[in-house]
Amino acid sequence: MIEPGSPAAITGTSIDDFLDRLASKDPTPGGGSAAAIMGAMGAALISMVCNVSHGKKGCESAEPELLEVCAQSEALRRRLTAMVAEDVAAFDELMAAYKLPKETDEEKQRRSHAIQSSLKRATEVPLACARDCAEVIRLSRRAGEHGYLGVISDAGVGVSAAYAAARSAALNVYINAPSLKDRAFAERALAELEGIMTSCTAESEAVYALVRERL
Amino acid sequence: MIEPGSPAAITGTSIDDFLDRLASKDPTPGGGSAAAIMGAMGAALISMVCNVSHGKKGCESAEPELLEVCAQSEALRRRLTAMVAEDVAAFDELMAAYKLPKETDEEKQRRSHAIQSSLKRATEVPLACARDCAEVIRLSRRAGEHGYLGVISDAGVGVSAAYAAARSAALNVYINAPSLKDRAFAERALAELEGIMTSCTAESEAVYALVRERL
Repeated sequence: MIEPGSPAAITGTSIDDFLDRLASKDPTPGGGSAAAIMGAMGAALISMVCNVSHGKKGCESAEPELLEVCAQSEALRRRLTAMVAEDVAAFDELMAAYKLPKETDEEKQRRSHAIQSSLKRATEVPLACARDCAEVIRLSRRAGEHGYLGVISDAGVGVSAAYAAARSAALNVYINAPSLKDRAFAERALAELEGIMTSCTAESEAVYALVRERL
Repeated sequence: MIEPGSPAAITGTSIDDFLDRLASKDPTPGGGSAAAIMGAMGAALISMVCNVSHGKKGCESAEPELLEVCAQSEALRRRLTAMVAEDVAAFDELMAAYKLPKETDEEKQRRSHAIQSSLKRATEVPLACARDCAEVIRLSRRAGEHGYLGVISDAGVGVSAAYAAARSAALNVYINAPSLKDRAFAERALAELEGIMTSCTAESEAVYALVRERL
């Protein structure tokens, strides 16, 4: 078991323990952590397609392409894995801000400032997650087009995981953006997210269909 | 690190190690294990919605409903977690069957029999995964309708994870079914899967929309 209040250690815990903690009544780890892990799983599967294709007959000409895809999917995997801790930290910071005293005018002002600053972070983290998942989806097309046929279904699983992660992260942006007083920031975040989700939906469907055809 | 060839221990390994192994050139763990874990994460999130809602103001009348949902999602979580090992075992059995000697007629016959038997198992395991994920999706509607508003987004993440898991498992059925000589078995599996996927697609979209409206 990992220590409570030690978000950095979540991905160091076992899958069994993580699932137990996810199911529990504790608010973290919750959907935000699950989203980042699904995104990281998607990136890992794209790396796997590239790694298995390496040196395989029929994949020789795609070798430089797949090496580049793998370098990018590994960088995304690292970022998405780190986001598990960032999501928990952002959520805990927001909860702590809501619990600040609100008796005097000064306290009220300090609390409001802390809440707004935490809400921004709790909007930025899932937005970054959705952005990275969109990248994983783009890479899954290249892995699906050029990868070795024996593992091509893993590109289909990777794109499905990354899309579920993006949709999940989006929900956390939808929750937090309406409470932001900095409306310009909130509207920019929502507009960027809308663009990401529109292209993710179309692209993930296209890649899944491409993979099914190649099976 | 877990021992190679010890599929039962996969969910006992850390998330970091699992992601490393997923990304590696080793064929297992691969998409099938990732599918089962996403399904288990979906079930865990439905349990979380129920567990957090317990005793919350406004959720009193839904208490019996949410207790029942939680009991079912926990049973599904246990089954889906166990499927990680089953998927690896089924894949390893199939790979071992393909490697059997095929010099004499007797060897050829024994090999063909072993391949067919392994292919059946490698079709049944992901089909069972898709079936259980469809159950998770059905439960996510009940959690999304009756759960506490503060964690309702987790029902949206849960349904997204379960749907990605079902789509991912489906790919493994699509791969293995065409090689089955028992066509009646194969056609039955594909027909059942088609029914599952049609209802999963519609239902997961509806639940995601329901959650977004309640945010």
